[in-house]
Amino acid sequence: MVTFLSGGTGTPKLLDGAAAAFSPEEITVVANTGDDIELGGLFVSPDVDTLLFQGGGVLDRETWWGIDGDTHRTNSALLDIASAAGLPDGPQYLPAEKQTEGRDLARWRRFSGVAEFMTIGDRDRAVHITRTSLLDEGHTLSEATQRLADAFGLTVDLLPMSDDPVASLVHTEQGLMHFQEYWVAHRGEPSVDTVEFRGSSNADPAPGVLEALDEAVVIGPSNPVTSIGPMLALPGVADALSQTPVVAVSPFLGDDAFSGPAGDLMAAVNADPSTEGLATAYPFADAFVIDEGDDAAFDRPTVRTDIGIDSREDAARVIRAVEDAIDRVN
Amino acid sequence: MVTFLSGGTGTPKLLDGAAAAFSPEEITVVANTGDDIELGGLFVSPDVDTLLFQGGGVLDRETWWGIDGDTHRTNSALLDIASAAGLPDGPQYLPAEKQTEGRDLARWRRFSGVAEFMTIGDRDRAVHITRTSLLDEGHTLSEATQRLADAFGLTVDLLPMSDDPVASLVHTEQGLMHFQEYWVAHRGEPSVDTVEFRGSSNADPAPGVLEALDEAVVIGPSNPVTSIGPMLALPGVADALSQTPVVAVSPFLGDDAFSGPAGDLMAAVNADPSTEGLATAYPFADAFVIDEGDDAAFDRPTVRTDIGIDSREDAARVIRAVEDAIDRVN
Repeated sequence: MVTFLSGGTGTPKLLDGAAAAFSPEEITVVANTGDDIELGGLFVSPDVDTLLFQGGGVLDRETWWGIDGDTHRTNSALLDIASAAGLPDGPQYLPAEKQTEGRDLARWRRFSGVAEFMTIGDRDRAVHITRTSLLDEGHTLSEATQRLADAFGLTVDLLPMSDDPVASLVHTEQGLMHFQEYWVAHRGEPSVDTVEFRGSSNADPAPGVLEALDEAVVIGPSNPVTSIGPMLALPGVADALSQTPVVAVSPFLGDDAFSGPAGDLMAAVNADPSTEGLATAYPFADAFVIDEGDDAAFDRPTVRTDIGIDSREDAARVIRAVEDAIDRVN
Repeated sequence: MVTFLSGGTGTPKLLDGAAAAFSPEEITVVANTGDDIELGGLFVSPDVDTLLFQGGGVLDRETWWGIDGDTHRTNSALLDIASAAGLPDGPQYLPAEKQTEGRDLARWRRFSGVAEFMTIGDRDRAVHITRTSLLDEGHTLSEATQRLADAFGLTVDLLPMSDDPVASLVHTEQGLMHFQEYWVAHRGEPSVDTVEFRGSSNADPAPGVLEALDEAVVIGPSNPVTSIGPMLALPGVADALSQTPVVAVSPFLGDDAFSGPAGDLMAAVNADPSTEGLATAYPFADAFVIDEGDDAAFDRPTVRTDIGIDSREDAARVIRAVEDAIDRVN
């Protein structure tokens, strides 16, 4: 049995090659939910969605979000209506008092749907509506995710990290903003002071998460701060990781992050924005998988391979390195 | 100045011919909101929407709801997901405690979006998202409607009947159900005991409504019970109508309703389900426009014409009869 901790790009890419070393029924994937937001009344869970679409074979592999070939009729009409009515565009938070009303899960991350600032596809939107309605019917996010995993025919176990609200909020030179505003609307450009996982100290890991952390754990090449950080902030998770074999796959090629704002964000949490910073970010890691061209040195077992993933073959190569690393520490 | 009271089909059809007697800036349209529901987290206002699309020239004139040429990608995907996940279809109310939580306006009429039982189009959905988000931003339904009217380029004044929750609930042999369940899911087939406008006694007419009822009022050929009834249940509306010239256009051709379940519903409120029942349903009416083939007799001025409306020319003919009736009582 093996458990992957996943954000929304690097680890889903890695999972494309999982079959090179693991059978689907051995695999549990725990997804970050700090990125989740409520947008126009719908609860959007971007990392869970990418994993649903990746696992279901319908992911848009150009963008690594959304459904391949999806249309965007509603999103486009939202922009047209806002423009014709003279309504503002860009991210618009609901009023402060609304941030803690309504669905508890959406606390501190509620956005207006006027001129919808994230490009939600039409089929993609049906996932958000189904999830939101299951939540409103009284199901947990775990239960809603299980139903969606059934719908997309997932063969791995997919768990959201928590059924409680945890909001990844970025304190920047331009003010406090949710990660989705920072990343989607501002392209990760504002200088970051610190990252806060609001709610995490009162949140529980979702059912099955701590049990899954009794197995060998693979931290995929996801953003250590905003993708993996929210999980580490949950009570019990860091402890559990310190007691089980953990292999971390570097999301860096030297000082460069493969995707997303990992470099800047690492600096914001006082970790070196490079492969070597992983030792600080993941003190519980027992082994690392890093690029063959990376001269980082660790006091723990290190497997080197070409860690660039542009195809399923690339993913399979990195997965074999992960298997090798697990074998060395298990 | 003239004010039309409108449901979602007959009166919008009549408004197609309004220019035959009135200029747009003379016209106020007050729309029924008892039919409104929250569906999958979105506040849907069907009669307001038909008037927006009719006035904006984008209405689907085959169905008299939705946007002409709209796609239904999200609705279709919702049905696919529910089917693949083994989730139920048909109307599903949110749990009882959720009916009075969240947006006050949606009280007593909250439905799950799982397998979305109303066929919402993709561009249509953008209207619901914009409306819902404007409500969540703190705007009233009137304000949200005004913004949408701007977006669709309406030339008439369009007012929702109230900014407060009023839910048209139908007590049937199959139990209590919202009008949309009765009409969309059950095709108006269950036998009706009575119709309740929950919330109406505590609701205020929206800003501008009572003022608009100082002008000559035209009650279009809409369902007297479920389209016009909710307005009449609002404090002050029946009084206002008794003090101003009111012309009612019959929605009946003898015992047949032109559209919708008017006949059965009239019987449910102890009114004769025919043109003559209008005198009971609209005691404040000062004149009637009825079909030339209708032998109903009233003790008030009555203008006869062919009241069937299948084209703009038909609508213009009925509008000229309305103008004639207003002239007789004004």
